[in-house]
Amino acid sequence: MRQDRTSPTGYALLGLLSFERELSGYELRQWAGNSLHFFYAAPAMSQVYAELERLEAAGLTGSREVPQGVRQVRVHRITAKGRRALGAWLRRPVDPPQLKHHLLLRVFLGHLLEPEDLRRAVEEHLRWCEAELASLRALLDDLGDDPVWAHARLVAQWGVEHHSAERSSARRLVRALDDGSPGGPRSAGTTVRA
Amino acid sequence: MRQDRTSPTGYALLGLLSFERELSGYELRQWAGNSLHFFYAAPAMSQVYAELERLEAAGLTGSREVPQGVRQVRVHRITAKGRRALGAWLRRPVDPPQLKHHLLLRVFLGHLLEPEDLRRAVEEHLRWCEAELASLRALLDDLGDDPVWAHARLVAQWGVEHHSAERSSARRLVRALDDGSPGGPRSAGTTVRA
Repeated sequence: MRQDRTSPTGYALLGLLSFERELSGYELRQWAGNSLHFFYAAPAMSQVYAELERLEAAGLTGSREVPQGVRQVRVHRITAKGRRALGAWLRRPVDPPQLKHHLLLRVFLGHLLEPEDLRRAVEEHLRWCEAELASLRALLDDLGDDPVWAHARLVAQWGVEHHSAERSSARRLVRALDDGSPGGPRSAGTTVRA
Repeated sequence: MRQDRTSPTGYALLGLLSFERELSGYELRQWAGNSLHFFYAAPAMSQVYAELERLEAAGLTGSREVPQGVRQVRVHRITAKGRRALGAWLRRPVDPPQLKHHLLLRVFLGHLLEPEDLRRAVEEHLRWCEAELASLRALLDDLGDDPVWAHARLVAQWGVEHHSAERSSARRLVRALDDGSPGGPRSAGTTVRA
């Protein structure tokens, strides 16, 4: 059996197609942006098209052109082989979450920033948390209580909890920064904990 | 002025060097693994060496060989130019956190998994959360109340809050999965919320 060359993002798109509807690349990108992005960095449009080409070359999806208004649009569907490959991938051991929290890197290096700059960045993060929470609540409303979306609801509920926790932590950071500049390294003789 | 080719990971390493101590690539990797990895995916050893070469070529770090036991080891330090570049980068607008939560992608696609498989994956995540919390508590003990580590403490405290919230969410997921399989798509006529 040849090596699996499908990326996690490819499997994520295959997963969206597993809801058994033919979708265009544009619709897939929209859906990934609206539902996946809370917990899984949504791919760029160019990456969606590249992944769809790879998936079809591997026989995991099929596609056809359908009329849409005055244009022809290519729509994609998962194949039986794609469904088997996705099922096998889903049963593999799960990696821990990968996080790149750009704000926290700045907090970590706070000794190089003015407290006002740091505080402004944390407040921007607070606004981002609020906006994500509003989107998640709208998503939960959209999902309703249709059993088809039971797992999507579990994930959206996780998102609400996650962003609420982020908001609490950001508020605590603002208070800690207000309580006085935590200071930075004072001398080159600092002992580094490695 | 030429385009900035330093990656965020390069700046993260430069940030570790901003604590004003000469460090070898190995020590930098160790430190990144122990302190950054809770909120910022730690680079592989090979990436650390590649970044250090780029930083030195750009004049942002300098290095020299020092004896360490019977060997010579190359140690790196931040330059004045490096400190300015890091300061300018830290003042740029901050991107939102980037997350790839592999477990939640599986939950989202739970209609393709047996409930037991999904439950096992969530329980594995719970054990990971516990291990991360134990490491963070040990890190907070190590940091003590030295003012040099004030910002590192803020970030470690965020880590405790973040992983506690993850643990609560994972426990809720286990309960929701126990309360009955949430079911999956029933027909190809499903309306997709895009």
